[in-house]
Amino acid sequence: MSTAEETAGGEAQPWGEVTPDAARRLLLAAVEAFAERGYHATTTRDIAGRAGMSPAALYIHYKTKEELLHRISRIGHEKALEVLRTASRAGGSPTERLAGAVSSFVRWHAGGRTTARVVQYELDSLGPEARAEIRELRRQVDAEVRGIIEEGARSGEFDVVDVHGTTLAVLSLCIDVARWFKVDGPRTPEEVGALYAELVLRMVGVTDPGAARE
Amino acid sequence: MSTAEETAGGEAQPWGEVTPDAARRLLLAAVEAFAERGYHATTTRDIAGRAGMSPAALYIHYKTKEELLHRISRIGHEKALEVLRTASRAGGSPTERLAGAVSSFVRWHAGGRTTARVVQYELDSLGPEARAEIRELRRQVDAEVRGIIEEGARSGEFDVVDVHGTTLAVLSLCIDVARWFKVDGPRTPEEVGALYAELVLRMVGVTDPGAARE
Repeated sequence: MSTAEETAGGEAQPWGEVTPDAARRLLLAAVEAFAERGYHATTTRDIAGRAGMSPAALYIHYKTKEELLHRISRIGHEKALEVLRTASRAGGSPTERLAGAVSSFVRWHAGGRTTARVVQYELDSLGPEARAEIRELRRQVDAEVRGIIEEGARSGEFDVVDVHGTTLAVLSLCIDVARWFKVDGPRTPEEVGALYAELVLRMVGVTDPGAARE
Repeated sequence: MSTAEETAGGEAQPWGEVTPDAARRLLLAAVEAFAERGYHATTTRDIAGRAGMSPAALYIHYKTKEELLHRISRIGHEKALEVLRTASRAGGSPTERLAGAVSSFVRWHAGGRTTARVVQYELDSLGPEARAEIRELRRQVDAEVRGIIEEGARSGEFDVVDVHGTTLAVLSLCIDVARWFKVDGPRTPEEVGALYAELVLRMVGVTDPGAARE
């Protein structure tokens, strides 16, 4: 659950755009602290200490602990949305796009699992305004996957009984990778991504993905 | 996330066998406190207060906060195992047994979601001995589902590429219900159970579950 482990997972962290450097280091320290001890057990003093800074230096960048969680959650969700949009707009058949969306979403949750766990499990710790903003981003994440499934169902490429329920299950399967994935486990993020893409295609009734790709 | 909400979910809690009554009330209070604030932010004083007892009264039943988490985790895992074993040994074809196991496992995670969240997300907070014991129970949970999938694959009823990976995905899908399920959401635990059973049968290559049941 350390930054070193994340890096070993082979996935870039979504914090590159956070400037200045001190603000970025504080966000990383907050992610680690929240993941290890939980949001409520972490103080801004703990976070500043992990980043090698004073509490006063933290307040220059973030007024409250909630502001740190909100920032982490927003960047995490925006990145998740970007990963899905890229896959969903890559062109190709619904089968190809759904497989691409699932495998990249899985890789992202495996590689960035510490962040993903904080983002997913500490939602209730956000205040009402922040939560409403994040909920809107989650609706957009949902809509990306649902859009592909609806298109495949309309074209007859998929055989789906319940579009909303299947969308929920697909996203849930991918998100839960952040809970169980271990860097020293038997599978790489890429292998899990490929397996899950195949399982999800079966869920939408594509029994021979090879044929649909031709 | 309150006990009232759990009850509204219509699922019996797995604490009936905990005696005496004070020990049971303390476990329930600990589940609520851990779910709301996280394990590390909760003190034994908080737990005693929620149960309407003094810290001294708590120590009669539990020596440490970790002992409470360990007890919750063990009972939760034993109950999960019992739910799966009952379904898996109910008789019938692998298709019927897998559908039964998934729907009852989903119902259990939806109805007991507060407990399930604590059990799933606070595993790392257990000490090494307790964690080893829980890991063994998790292996048995895994083996129940894998056993049904292996049997269906052997008999030709299922078409499974990767038995271990599919078992992992099936369990993961069911467990994550505890994260997203809401009592005031659009689906009952029974509806989610039925939908997920169908999606899982598709994952193992049963495209017409009705036919396999005949």
